[in-house]
Amino acid sequence: MKKLAFGIDIGGINTAFGLVDEKGELFANSVISTKAYPNYSDYPQYINDLAEAMKVLVHSVNFEFELIGIGIGAPNANYYNGTVETPANLWKYTNEEVAAGLKEEERIFHFAEDLGKHFLNVPVYITNDANAATIGEMVYGGAKGMKDFIMITLGTGVGSGFVANGELIYGHDGFAGEFGHVIVERGGRQCGCGRKGCLETYTSAIGIKRTAFELLSTMSDPSPLRDLSFNQVDSAMIAQFAAKGDEISKEAFRLTGQKLGYALADAVTITSPEAIFIFGGLAKAGEILFNPIKWYMEENMLMAFKNKVKVLPSELQNKNAAILGASALVWQAK
Amino acid sequence: MKKLAFGIDIGGINTAFGLVDEKGELFANSVISTKAYPNYSDYPQYINDLAEAMKVLVHSVNFEFELIGIGIGAPNANYYNGTVETPANLWKYTNEEVAAGLKEEERIFHFAEDLGKHFLNVPVYITNDANAATIGEMVYGGAKGMKDFIMITLGTGVGSGFVANGELIYGHDGFAGEFGHVIVERGGRQCGCGRKGCLETYTSAIGIKRTAFELLSTMSDPSPLRDLSFNQVDSAMIAQFAAKGDEISKEAFRLTGQKLGYALADAVTITSPEAIFIFGGLAKAGEILFNPIKWYMEENMLMAFKNKVKVLPSELQNKNAAILGASALVWQAK
Repeated sequence: MKKLAFGIDIGGINTAFGLVDEKGELFANSVISTKAYPNYSDYPQYINDLAEAMKVLVHSVNFEFELIGIGIGAPNANYYNGTVETPANLWKYTNEEVAAGLKEEERIFHFAEDLGKHFLNVPVYITNDANAATIGEMVYGGAKGMKDFIMITLGTGVGSGFVANGELIYGHDGFAGEFGHVIVERGGRQCGCGRKGCLETYTSAIGIKRTAFELLSTMSDPSPLRDLSFNQVDSAMIAQFAAKGDEISKEAFRLTGQKLGYALADAVTITSPEAIFIFGGLAKAGEILFNPIKWYMEENMLMAFKNKVKVLPSELQNKNAAILGASALVWQAK
Repeated sequence: MKKLAFGIDIGGINTAFGLVDEKGELFANSVISTKAYPNYSDYPQYINDLAEAMKVLVHSVNFEFELIGIGIGAPNANYYNGTVETPANLWKYTNEEVAAGLKEEERIFHFAEDLGKHFLNVPVYITNDANAATIGEMVYGGAKGMKDFIMITLGTGVGSGFVANGELIYGHDGFAGEFGHVIVERGGRQCGCGRKGCLETYTSAIGIKRTAFELLSTMSDPSPLRDLSFNQVDSAMIAQFAAKGDEISKEAFRLTGQKLGYALADAVTITSPEAIFIFGGLAKAGEILFNPIKWYMEENMLMAFKNKVKVLPSELQNKNAAILGASALVWQAK
């Protein structure tokens, strides 16, 4: 009988899920709102409604199959514990609950266990979004057969997954792979993590926007960016302006690639990967981003690693990557 | 029958070797000169003489035992290939050979295979010194039972070994763990690797001396260092001066710990280790080094990792660490 795995991608707005086979083919998918369950007290209902919607999807498939597992990608997920711990934008305490002394940083959701109760004897795996993307690349994508590689996800933040000896590095506590928070400029840009100068303040979708606006002050070239507010601009627009020859947008991509290339040259000294995959919205910009990443990485590479490490776009880039990545957790565990 | 493993530590001056049991007890050890075989053409004789000396040691043991393997720690060793590749200070071409067109960077010694011919059916493992120390810590030392930890060796250079999921990270090509060459000051101090600002230019035994001499220019305190030449001073003297209250030496240790603490906070985001072990001559300085390492690491730590990662002196510190570490390769491979 055909075997399928559930992949579930939990975002702040929606929860997308689908049934995937071991080759990465998606047979059915659906979505429920995450945003409709904003409070801590909404979480049990969210789990119930998600499980119901998953069962509806199971019955919508017009052939017999065996459900062999459920894989979940979620913010702040801990693979070892099966938990989602203190997520910044999910299932928060109300102002009243906070006033009554409940602490946001003590919210722990036993997600794998809670969802698993609705699917008896089906194993449930959970990890964070970047780790799920990493395993997706390893199971279905360009990293198939590789034992040592790095995945970098460039989204609102910068995520990462490091694979060594054929296994994802979860670390002692399950929270490894926070490469977006290596310091690349000591005392540099304010980061959402409370510190300054983290990689993601320079190379995320928001990071490149910060760079472009900094360049509006340091360069004097005319630019379509000069007619737009910070809140009007996004990284896709900067990519479009750059493609049309805007000097400031081009320079923003060069500086973004430089910061990432420098940081990757350092990461390579630690794990000596075969390849580095770049995933996420910014990666769609193509050569204008990849060329400076490669150039500055090689310029700063220790001799032993020079011209050995491939920098590649993720092969899951234009697919349902988040669902595929989450489902890959199941095949990876087999 | 008792089982013993050979551990061999190949240094530029001497090659030390010994027979070790699985608990890390050293039953016999000896040494031959490495320096007496300086040239490429001396290498075959070196292997022969080493094998002979090892056999003499085997016969010196006054009980019956089974030799279950040979583990070797050597500069520029590649675990996967069993080779020593282009070592800077071993078995070099003569000036005549170089003039004849032979290239130092193409010297590859098939060490495991060549030595193995003298010990039929005994498996031979080789890796670099820092990796051997790392496995030594895991098999015999403070990392026993840990699945995720980092080893930092502070010697003439700075070496490292990263363990994740219970396995040492060798990387795609066998050369992972070059943490001494992450850039901590872009455009900073000249490094032996040809680049600038590597961690080891600041935190090795020579790095702290460079720092102390820089401080002679930036500080105006009197210091015993002001009566000594650069070549007269070593890191042990700086530790002694610091212990006696010399402000410049104390400041040199603070700055060394700061640079290492910063770099470790970044490394933790990648592998999230349970502990970081510090090994080597500088580590003997104790609190004066460990306190600033811990302070600056915690000050720069991403919230998720704060106050979770132990910084500990290696438990092999005052033992025959290099021989033990090399022999641990054998027990680790079982």
